[in-house]
Amino acid sequence: MTTDRMPNAFRAGTTPLPERDAALIARRSAALGPAYRLFYEKPLHLVRGQGVWLYDADGRAYLDAYNNVASVGHCHPRVVEAVARQAATLATHTRYLHEGVLDLAERLLATMPAAIGHVMFTCTGSEANDLALRLAFEATGGTGVIVTENAYHGVTLAVAGASPSLGAGVALGPHVRTIPAPDPATGADARFAAAVEAACADLLRHGIRPAALMVDTIFSSDGVFAEPRGLLAPAAQAIRAAGGLFIADEVQPGFGRTGEAMWGFARHGMVPDMISMGKPMGNGYPVAALALRPDLVAGFGARARYFNTFGGNAVAAAAALAVLDVIETEGLQQNAHAVGGRFRAALAALSHRHPAVGEVRGAGLFIGLDMIDPESRAPDAAKAGRIVNSLREAGVLISATGPQGHVLKIRPPLVFSDSDAALFLDRLDAVLTANP
Amino acid sequence: MTTDRMPNAFRAGTTPLPERDAALIARRSAALGPAYRLFYEKPLHLVRGQGVWLYDADGRAYLDAYNNVASVGHCHPRVVEAVARQAATLATHTRYLHEGVLDLAERLLATMPAAIGHVMFTCTGSEANDLALRLAFEATGGTGVIVTENAYHGVTLAVAGASPSLGAGVALGPHVRTIPAPDPATGADARFAAAVEAACADLLRHGIRPAALMVDTIFSSDGVFAEPRGLLAPAAQAIRAAGGLFIADEVQPGFGRTGEAMWGFARHGMVPDMISMGKPMGNGYPVAALALRPDLVAGFGARARYFNTFGGNAVAAAAALAVLDVIETEGLQQNAHAVGGRFRAALAALSHRHPAVGEVRGAGLFIGLDMIDPESRAPDAAKAGRIVNSLREAGVLISATGPQGHVLKIRPPLVFSDSDAALFLDRLDAVLTANP
Repeated sequence: MTTDRMPNAFRAGTTPLPERDAALIARRSAALGPAYRLFYEKPLHLVRGQGVWLYDADGRAYLDAYNNVASVGHCHPRVVEAVARQAATLATHTRYLHEGVLDLAERLLATMPAAIGHVMFTCTGSEANDLALRLAFEATGGTGVIVTENAYHGVTLAVAGASPSLGAGVALGPHVRTIPAPDPATGADARFAAAVEAACADLLRHGIRPAALMVDTIFSSDGVFAEPRGLLAPAAQAIRAAGGLFIADEVQPGFGRTGEAMWGFARHGMVPDMISMGKPMGNGYPVAALALRPDLVAGFGARARYFNTFGGNAVAAAAALAVLDVIETEGLQQNAHAVGGRFRAALAALSHRHPAVGEVRGAGLFIGLDMIDPESRAPDAAKAGRIVNSLREAGVLISATGPQGHVLKIRPPLVFSDSDAALFLDRLDAVLTANP
Repeated sequence: MTTDRMPNAFRAGTTPLPERDAALIARRSAALGPAYRLFYEKPLHLVRGQGVWLYDADGRAYLDAYNNVASVGHCHPRVVEAVARQAATLATHTRYLHEGVLDLAERLLATMPAAIGHVMFTCTGSEANDLALRLAFEATGGTGVIVTENAYHGVTLAVAGASPSLGAGVALGPHVRTIPAPDPATGADARFAAAVEAACADLLRHGIRPAALMVDTIFSSDGVFAEPRGLLAPAAQAIRAAGGLFIADEVQPGFGRTGEAMWGFARHGMVPDMISMGKPMGNGYPVAALALRPDLVAGFGARARYFNTFGGNAVAAAAALAVLDVIETEGLQQNAHAVGGRFRAALAALSHRHPAVGEVRGAGLFIGLDMIDPESRAPDAAKAGRIVNSLREAGVLISATGPQGHVLKIRPPLVFSDSDAALFLDRLDAVLTANP
C-alpha cells in the first residue's frame, strides 16, 4: 500500500501521537470529510519550512526529500518577497495589460523549442492538463486519450478520468486507453511506441479518433523511468501518425528537476505539441501553465476565448519569475544534475549492501528506488511502506509510488546538497539495516 | 457585443493608445495567443491598486466598480500581511496536518446551514464546480446537468461544457440541458421550477439520469436576477424529485456581496446540496472550495481520495481567513447591504431621467442595469458597449453581461462607500447624457 492511499485513520507509529495532533485529525475528519488522506502512519504536523528543512509543532526538523512544490527551497526569501511586494501593489487578471505575465510567458518560451510559441496560464497542473485535453480535442477533432497504466494527470473530471493511479474507485473515461510504462523489468520500454500504435488502433476500432498521448516525461507515478533516452520520440511519431498530439506533462519533472535540461522531454530528443507545467512553478504559489504550438489554438481562439480569473495574475507572474530567477542565479538545474548524479550513484552503492533494495533509477533529483523481496526479487510494497514510515521517524521525508507501491520516491527540493544527500544516505542505511 | 467578447485587437478609443501599451498588446498576442481577450476598446494598463481604486501606468486613477476578486478592497493590508507572513513561514499541502485549513473550513461551515458539513478545497471556482459535478455524478449515478441559458460556471472541460455564456464556439456537453433564467421581462421567473421539471423529463426521455441543477444564485451572466426571492426553493425540489442535486454556484454572489447574507442562496430560503465558492475568497490569492452535505462524499471517500496540491495550502488558508476577518471586522456584508441598497435606489432614480436605462436589478453590491432602445424598449447591446467604454474613459470600470450583452454589470469591491457611489452616479449621468 502506498502512503498515497493510506486511510485517513492512522495506525500506531513507533512513538505515540501527541494529543494535540489527534485532536487535529478529529477536526479534519469532521470538517474536510473522508476523501482527504494524510501522509504517514503517524501524520506529520508541520508548522515551518526553510530550504530543505521542515519543522513540526514540537520543533523537530525533517529533511524534506519529497516535496517538489517548494522546489527552490521552502520559503525562499526571493520568492516570498516577490509575492509580498506584488500582492501589496496589484493582484489582478489578464483582461488588463500587465507586463508581468508577458515577461513570464517570454521567459518560459525561451526555455522551449522554437515550435512552441504560446503559453496559456492556469492555477494548477490539473487545469493545465485539462486545458491540454480540451484544446487537443478541438484541434484534432478526436476524443481518444492514451496514458500510461499508472499515470496521474490531475483531479478535474476530464483528467481524473485519464489518471489510472487514482485507483479502481475512479473510473477511467470511456475514450481513454492505457499502455504499459517503459519499465525495463517488463521489457515494456522496447515496446512503448508499438503500444501507442496498438492503443490508437484500438481506439479507431471503437470509432474513436485519437486526440492525444499524454505522458509524464519521467513517469513519476508509474515508478520513475528515465531510461532509455529517446524513447518518447517514436511514441510521438506514433500518435501523430494516428492524427493525435503528444502532450508532455512536465508538472512533476519540469523546471530543472531532471538536471540536464529545464524539461523532461529534452532528454528524449523530441519536441512535444503541448507542454503542461505546474507544481514547482511558483514555489508554493498556485500557478501553472500550458505551452503549445500556436497552430493548435488558432481555431479555438478564432471562435472562443480563454479566461482563468487567477491564471497568470500579477502575483502569480511575480512568483514564477522569481522562481526562474532563483533557478538561474543559484544554478539549481546544474545542482540537480551534479548532486543528483552523485546521490544516485551512492544509492546504487548502498543497494549492493542491502538485498531488499533493487534498481535505483531517475534523472537529476528525481529518483526511484525499488524495494524488493531479496529472495524472489518481487516488488515489496509492505517493506516500502515500512521504510517510508521509519524514515519519517528518523526525520527524513519521502513517499512511495508505482502501481505496486514498492518504489521509494525521492524528490527533494533542488537546493539539496551533497551533505543533505549524505545525511539521507546515513538515515536510509540505518533504516534498511533495521528493516532487513 | 459584451466587452467579454471583444476581439484581442482593439478599436480606436477617444484618446490614442500609448505606444507603450500598443507594444504590450503586440507582445501579448505573440506570447499568449489568440484565445486571450482584453477588456475595453482601449485596453487598460494597470500597475497598482488600493481599496476601490486602480491606477494605470500614467498614474491615472480608476474607480473600480467591477472586480469582485479584490472584494475587500485591492491590496487590503491585512490580507497582504497574512499572505506574506504565511508564505515566509510554511507553504505546504493538506497531506500534512495544519491548523490553518481546519480553522478555515470550520469558519466557512459556521456561515452555512447545518446540513452542509464538509468543505473541500480547490484553487479556482472552475475546479470547485468541476468537483461538484464529479461528486454529483458519483452520488446520484446520473450524468445529466441543467444550467441556465447564459450560465457561466468555469473553464475546465466539464464545466465549460455547462457554460453556454462561452458562446457558440464552445460546445455544450451532450448531457447538458439549459433553462431560461428567471427574467421577469420574459415571465421565466414564474416558470423556473417548471422548466427544471421539463429539463429533467427531457434528460430522462434521452436515457440520461439527472445529476444536478447548477445555478449561480444571482444569475450573474444571465443578466443579474435577484428576484423573486424564494424562486430557488421549488427549483431545488424539482431537481431532487428527479434524483438530482442542487448545486449553488456562489463563486460570484458569495462572501457577503448580496448584502443580506454571506451566500446568495440564503435570500431564497433554501438549503443547497453543494455550494461552490471562489473569486473573492482570498482577495486575489487563488483559493476556492466546495462545501457539501457529508453523505454526498461518503461513498466517494470510501473508495477514492481527493488531493489538490495547492488547494487549502497553508498560505491559501491564511489568505481566506484574513478575508473572513476583514468582512467581519469591517462589516462589509452590512456595507454591501446598506450602500448597495442606496446605490440601487439612486440608479433607479437616475434611470427615470435617462430613457435608455431600463430596469435596475440586484442585491447588495451586485447590480445589473439594462440598456434599452428608448422607443422599442428592446435590449441595446451597442449602447451598453459605448457606456462601458465611455465610463472607462471617464475613469470608472464596469462591464456588460447578459445573453444580449445589454446589461451593465456593476460589482464593486465591498468597501465601496456612499461617496464612491456618488462619484459613480455622477460619471454615469454624464456618460448617459453624452450617449442619449
